[in-house]
Amino acid sequence: MSGRIDARLEALGITLPTPAAPVANYVPFVVTGALVLISGQGPIAPERRILGQLGAGLDIAAGRLAARLCFINLLAQLRAACGGDLDRVRRVVRLGGFIAATAAFTAHAEVMNGASDLAVEVFGEAGRHARTTVGVPSLPLDFAVEVEGMFEIA
Amino acid sequence: MSGRIDARLEALGITLPTPAAPVANYVPFVVTGALVLISGQGPIAPERRILGQLGAGLDIAAGRLAARLCFINLLAQLRAACGGDLDRVRRVVRLGGFIAATAAFTAHAEVMNGASDLAVEVFGEAGRHARTTVGVPSLPLDFAVEVEGMFEIA
Amino acid sequence: MSGRIDARLEALGITLPTPAAPVANYVPFVVTGALVLISGQGPIAPERRILGQLGAGLDIAAGRLAARLCFINLLAQLRAACGGDLDRVRRVVRLGGFIAATAAFTAHAEVMNGASDLAVEVFGEAGRHARTTVGVPSLPLDFAVEVEGMFEIA
Repeated sequence: MSGRIDARLEALGITLPTPAAPVANYVPFVVTGALVLISGQGPIAPERRILGQLGAGLDIAAGRLAARLCFINLLAQLRAACGGDLDRVRRVVRLGGFIAATAAFTAHAEVMNGASDLAVEVFGEAGRHARTTVGVPSLPLDFAVEVEGMFEIA
Repeated sequence: MSGRIDARLEALGITLPTPAAPVANYVPFVVTGALVLISGQGPIAPERRILGQLGAGLDIAAGRLAARLCFINLLAQLRAACGGDLDRVRRVVRLGGFIAATAAFTAHAEVMNGASDLAVEVFGEAGRHARTTVGVPSLPLDFAVEVEGMFEIA
Repeated sequence: MSGRIDARLEALGITLPTPAAPVANYVPFVVTGALVLISGQGPIAPERRILGQLGAGLDIAAGRLAARLCFINLLAQLRAACGGDLDRVRRVVRLGGFIAATAAFTAHAEVMNGASDLAVEVFGEAGRHARTTVGVPSLPLDFAVEVEGMFEIA
C-alpha cells in the first residue's frame, strides 16, 4: 500500500482480494497496447457471494452491492495487470454490466451504479467511463451481476 | 452543418439530437488512442421512445426503428466525441446490439439491421462494421433495443 | 496449409470452413490498429447447426460443442483478416460468449470452455484470453451459443 490509488482505497476502507484465479482455459486479463481487457467478474467477496435475479427476490440494494463487489474484483485484477501499481491507470474506458433480471425489471442502471460510483470514488475524473448495461436471464454460478472492464494504463 | 457527413445526414433527413447527458456516474463516450467507445444508447427520440419486448407485442418493424434510433443517438455522441466534425470518423468498428426479446424470438438480426443499414447509409463503406447481436430479457427503462459502438477516428 | 497454426489445425483434425458471408450490412471483421474485431459467430458447421436453449432440452455437451463450432468460425474469419496467414496472430485478446439459457441454468462457464479450450489447443499460451460469459434468452436464428472475438495480430 504505497501509491495514490492504494491510499484512496484505504481511505474508502476497501481491501482488494487476492485476484481470483481463472476457473478455465482463460485468464483474468490481457494487456494489448495501452489497453487492459479484464474478464467478467462476479459478486464474490471473502465472506459472501450475491446470487439470484433482480425482480425475483433480489432487491436493488443487493444488486448495487453486487455490482460494487464486481468492480472490487475488477480492481484486484487491474492491480495485477499493472504489476501492483494502480497509479499506472490512466482511465477507466468502458464497463459492461450484465444484470440477472426478469423481463419486467427496469432498474438495471440503478444496479450498475454500484460499480460506476465506485469507479469514480476510486479514480476521480479518470474513473468516468463508457458503459453498457443490459439484463440477462442467468449468469455463471447464479451470479446476480457480472461486470467486465476495459482500462487504459501507462 | 458543413462537413461531408453532415451533408449526408441532411440528405437523409436526419437531425441529430442534443447528445443525451449521462444519467449516472458514467459518460457517453471515452476516447482512447484512435478509438471512441460509446455507451449503450436507447431508442429515444424527441417525440417518442420505443419500449417493450420483441416477440411479445412489439413487431419487427418497430424493433428496426428502435435500432435506428439507437444509432442516431450513437451518432450524436460520436459527433461530440469528434469535437463536432463527423468527417473525422474513419470507421465504424463494431456495434453491439441487445434486443429485448422472448426465448422464442429468432429475428434479432433483422431488428439490428435498423442500426447497421443506417451506418452504411451515413458512412458508406466506412460504415460497414463488425457486429454482435443477442437477445436479452429486459433493458434499462424498458428499452426495446440498446446499441453500443466502437469507432475509429482521425 | 503451410504455417505453424495451419499445421496445428491439421493435427487437431480441423478444417476451417469458407468464412460465412455477412447476412446484412455488416462485415465479419474489422481491423483497427493491431486489433481484429470479429462479429458474433454462431454454431454452424457444414453438416450441422446447434439450436435451442441450455437448460431446456439442450445438454452441456451439446453446448460445449456449439461453443467450439463458434470458435472454429471465428478462426475462419480470423484467417481471412490475416490475409490467410494465421501465424500473424499474436494473441487471442478477448472472447465474449452468449449462451442461450433458462433463468435456472448456471453452467455457462462449462459451455463456453468449448471455445476457450480450443483457443489454447490451437494457439498455446497466446490462446489464453480474457472472457465474458453470460446467459441470454434467445439468439439470432435460434443459435444455442454465439461467440465474438478480439484478437491482436502482427
